[in-house]
Amino acid sequence: MLKSVHPNQKRLPELVSEQIKELIAKGNLKAGDKLPNEFEMAEQLQVGRGTIREAVKILVSQNVLEIKRGNGTFVCERTGLADDPLGLWMIEDKQKLALDLCEVRMMIEPEIAELAAERGTKDEIASLKNAGYAVEEKIRSGEDHSAEDINFHEALAKMSKNQVVPKLIPVIQSAVNLFVKVTDSVLREETIETHNKIIRAVEDGDGAGAKAALEDHLKLNKEEIQRLISR
Amino acid sequence: MLKSVHPNQKRLPELVSEQIKELIAKGNLKAGDKLPNEFEMAEQLQVGRGTIREAVKILVSQNVLEIKRGNGTFVCERTGLADDPLGLWMIEDKQKLALDLCEVRMMIEPEIAELAAERGTKDEIASLKNAGYAVEEKIRSGEDHSAEDINFHEALAKMSKNQVVPKLIPVIQSAVNLFVKVTDSVLREETIETHNKIIRAVEDGDGAGAKAALEDHLKLNKEEIQRLISR
Repeated sequence: MLKSVHPNQKRLPELVSEQIKELIAKGNLKAGDKLPNEFEMAEQLQVGRGTIREAVKILVSQNVLEIKRGNGTFVCERTGLADDPLGLWMIEDKQKLALDLCEVRMMIEPEIAELAAERGTKDEIASLKNAGYAVEEKIRSGEDHSAEDINFHEALAKMSKNQVVPKLIPVIQSAVNLFVKVTDSVLREETIETHNKIIRAVEDGDGAGAKAALEDHLKLNKEEIQRLISR
Repeated sequence: MLKSVHPNQKRLPELVSEQIKELIAKGNLKAGDKLPNEFEMAEQLQVGRGTIREAVKILVSQNVLEIKRGNGTFVCERTGLADDPLGLWMIEDKQKLALDLCEVRMMIEPEIAELAAERGTKDEIASLKNAGYAVEEKIRSGEDHSAEDINFHEALAKMSKNQVVPKLIPVIQSAVNLFVKVTDSVLREETIETHNKIIRAVEDGDGAGAKAALEDHLKLNKEEIQRLISR
């Protein structure tokens, strides 16, 4: 699996960490996979165990690997993504942050919905429908649906075939959940409706319709946040 | 500076790390500031040195603090921002990535320019002009102008008064530099011109003009990338 690295200008632990990242990028190692233990890796790569430990440390700090104590080293589920990679915790005014996040979503998500309608495949439409059902189920049973909601918008982002937006959307949406307590009781029914509108538009290849559905949804979202703030 | 933390549900190192983050968020600790040493912090907070060490480790992994060996612990310059926080290294096709990044910039940056023109203050316009001069100087002397270019677009993003976009723009622009080797000889003159157009439009409070200038710039950018790929 791993090839021996030969010393050049770069430090050994960096070379090892880059090799591991390459295996992940190429799909040889997947999210959740367990890495061989220190001894095996050191042997395969013909480097010392200290080098392996340092390489793993680098990758842990980059949210690529995680160490589960007493269990081993694993590839992170959301590889490379920290909980709050944009460092939004630094923003003190969380109410204004909620509106700002809304503004950013308004720039990106309607465009994404349009691209998704133009570029999505049949299989992807089926997955999007399932993601939509999952949200609806959680809402109907009165449970927290934020994780399912992020999945829905991530699925939509993947359909755009743009490789950057599926990384961006969870970041922005998680931020909403991390920092903003918007009790979305008012928006629950509306969320189900919007998702259905988006699914229909995407199925019909109707870019303008998908875009409009997201714009309406975000406008309502913004109004709801403003209402909560003014209270 | 630091208050003693008292144990509750959370683990001590986490409480300490949160307290340090709060001091940074409130501006009591600024980028580049040196933290008191382990002994002093342990004393101030009435916790063990092991707890301080663990708290620092958490914050190093979040790109909030950095340890300069033999010198001490410092607040990171771009606090909370990793080099590649979206984990774009995982995308194998770097040529398609270049076009995808362009597509994302097209969603966000024209809107930002429009908001900047509507919301920017006189002082901010002066800073934007200086940032523009700095780019032009580098280009005229044939040097790499990517850092100055990021500063220009970051200054523009700050003028939008949206607190999220100034965090987003450097991420996307750095990605362009990290992953895409676009020899921008053709775009050098055009970059100077675009920046001047943006500055003029922002000075005039002309949102539509600023938006159009950025749209044109990004269209040319995209064409140049496509030309390079097809070669």
